[in-house]
Amino acid sequence: MKLQSTPKQDGFYMPSELAPHKCTYLLWPERPDNWREGAKPAQKAFREVVEVIAKHEPVVLGVNQSQYLHVLGMNMPNVSVVEISNNDSWIRDSGATMVINGKGDIRAVDWGFNGYGGMTDGIYYPWDFDDYVGAKMANIEKTDRYVPEDFVLEGGSIHTDGEGTLLVTEETLLSEGRNPGKSKEEIEAILKEYTGAEKVLWLPYGVYKDEDTNGHVDNICQFVAPGKVVLAWEDNPNDPQHERSQVDYDYLMNETDAKGRKIEIVKIHVPNVITITKEESEGVDVVEGTFPRNEGDRLPASYINYYNCNGAIILPVFNDPHDEEAVRTLQELFPDRVIETVYAREILLGGGNIHCITQQVPKA
Amino acid sequence: MKLQSTPKQDGFYMPSELAPHKCTYLLWPERPDNWREGAKPAQKAFREVVEVIAKHEPVVLGVNQSQYLHVLGMNMPNVSVVEISNNDSWIRDSGATMVINGKGDIRAVDWGFNGYGGMTDGIYYPWDFDDYVGAKMANIEKTDRYVPEDFVLEGGSIHTDGEGTLLVTEETLLSEGRNPGKSKEEIEAILKEYTGAEKVLWLPYGVYKDEDTNGHVDNICQFVAPGKVVLAWEDNPNDPQHERSQVDYDYLMNETDAKGRKIEIVKIHVPNVITITKEESEGVDVVEGTFPRNEGDRLPASYINYYNCNGAIILPVFNDPHDEEAVRTLQELFPDRVIETVYAREILLGGGNIHCITQQVPKA
Repeated sequence: MKLQSTPKQDGFYMPSELAPHKCTYLLWPERPDNWREGAKPAQKAFREVVEVIAKHEPVVLGVNQSQYLHVLGMNMPNVSVVEISNNDSWIRDSGATMVINGKGDIRAVDWGFNGYGGMTDGIYYPWDFDDYVGAKMANIEKTDRYVPEDFVLEGGSIHTDGEGTLLVTEETLLSEGRNPGKSKEEIEAILKEYTGAEKVLWLPYGVYKDEDTNGHVDNICQFVAPGKVVLAWEDNPNDPQHERSQVDYDYLMNETDAKGRKIEIVKIHVPNVITITKEESEGVDVVEGTFPRNEGDRLPASYINYYNCNGAIILPVFNDPHDEEAVRTLQELFPDRVIETVYAREILLGGGNIHCITQQVPKA
Repeated sequence: MKLQSTPKQDGFYMPSELAPHKCTYLLWPERPDNWREGAKPAQKAFREVVEVIAKHEPVVLGVNQSQYLHVLGMNMPNVSVVEISNNDSWIRDSGATMVINGKGDIRAVDWGFNGYGGMTDGIYYPWDFDDYVGAKMANIEKTDRYVPEDFVLEGGSIHTDGEGTLLVTEETLLSEGRNPGKSKEEIEAILKEYTGAEKVLWLPYGVYKDEDTNGHVDNICQFVAPGKVVLAWEDNPNDPQHERSQVDYDYLMNETDAKGRKIEIVKIHVPNVITITKEESEGVDVVEGTFPRNEGDRLPASYINYYNCNGAIILPVFNDPHDEEAVRTLQELFPDRVIETVYAREILLGGGNIHCITQQVPKA
């Protein structure tokens, strides 16, 4: 059922992604105007992500009816294949944010979704199916739903430490296409009300050229523990990423979290510049109203867009010299978690990465 | 996952519908060539069934995407609205039969479905979405699936006492459109293998004019306890129902169940003859290949098509003089259950009744 109260009123909050999960949701990629070659290479990459997560926790894979039998027939262990009509496969952004109360109850926050900016700068049209993905997740999980009135938010634009602090970027949350009638203070108040957070840290920037999402936080920074984050980094001062990372770094160094802790920052260098090839670009259907994937466009590649599942980290890699450092850094940060790498160029070509295509359901 | 073994091999069996349920599944009616006036009167009746069951146990309501927002917006307590593309709304027949092992595990049997007789005498075409409903139920419930090879069965064509005995009708199970290459013995062997039953009682007949289903057992006879059934009855020897009921009665009187018990039979008189009105017939789209709903056609009305949910019986009534006797008889048989009546003419007009539109998931 749709509830009339808010999570904060009811004692619910969004736990850290690092807390134990019940399962992970994904959506199956299909649209040929975003995924090259009829989405077949992307489907292979998504399948790899699904199967590697399913080694660690149950997966629920939502598919359009058109792909149901294909995906069901893969007969993947620990994977439930359910029908969730969707416009694209970024369930981090279209899906529900699950909240818990620490007493064994779980509920969903079903944010508004408008295709990353609606008619202002959205990247596809229509986005109506994606706007119901959160409700469908909640209903499949048989949980009640909070539905913030007249408020657009993608799950990839927030991170939480589960102890009262949210990480967001100004670039996304204050963009014209999200909630143009609302001030920063109003947006912050809604975020706190629906995630249970006490403090919001507003990073100025996301990753350079992360234009689809207007710079989601989940590509540049995420918590590895309360009071401790990893930040996408670029050493080269001539690369536009350098200044963005530096500004975010400086911001965080001068902030404290909801508990008054200073923020410890671990840098993870981005891979070398990745651009779309001619062949890759030509494999994508050209459709008016859909964000183009042009030859030579720089992609917003970052290791920070990894996913934390039970006992593991699912890390995108790029056959890049920086891959090894990313693996080593995360393994040092998480000695008890397996670092599972997936070659993720095909996901990146669609505009996001592993964190963007996953959405956890925490254990109640 | 799809399993390669059978329930019997793995120690799983189909429990009685009277055993405790986890939840009930239904599908939302929509097709205008079966449900009059764009299915709006049927939707009202289905909603009443959903809401009355939801007073007693959780309901999962599957809908086509086209009706998702409409149904979600009803915001019904204890009802989850999930997407399940379907051709029609008889989830008793298209859904999965859930089996348990008594050790806390639950699995699904995902029978073949061919629209009640395929190209021989099926009642609509195509039926492809309905054929996946069982798989989708299993996946939403996150259970593994048994898939009998090359075997068609509707859930409404079997009843079990949960103690080793199945009730079926020869009319349906031996009909040309189901499993024409298989003998009665072969069919019986498959039934036992997938329901865990030890004995199959083959009633000769279903209800008169139950032509859609070729005479499903769930409209004429069901268990009220091991060794005890209710049977649709007609006193008038000039009514064709009389002989059908009498033949079934005589058959059962001369049979014993899997445990060697004689069968006690409680008669429940059918309502007076109900026929389709001109207005009702004219409200249905005429489509070639869909079973017609003509003015004057007699409907297979019976009280036996009730549904057992936790603590209640959901009983179709018809504003008929026999309603009261049906309620009284069932209340005497089930002193601890609430008898919930639903005026069910609109469901009957579509060719079935409350049992046909429900499918239980037992508690594991």
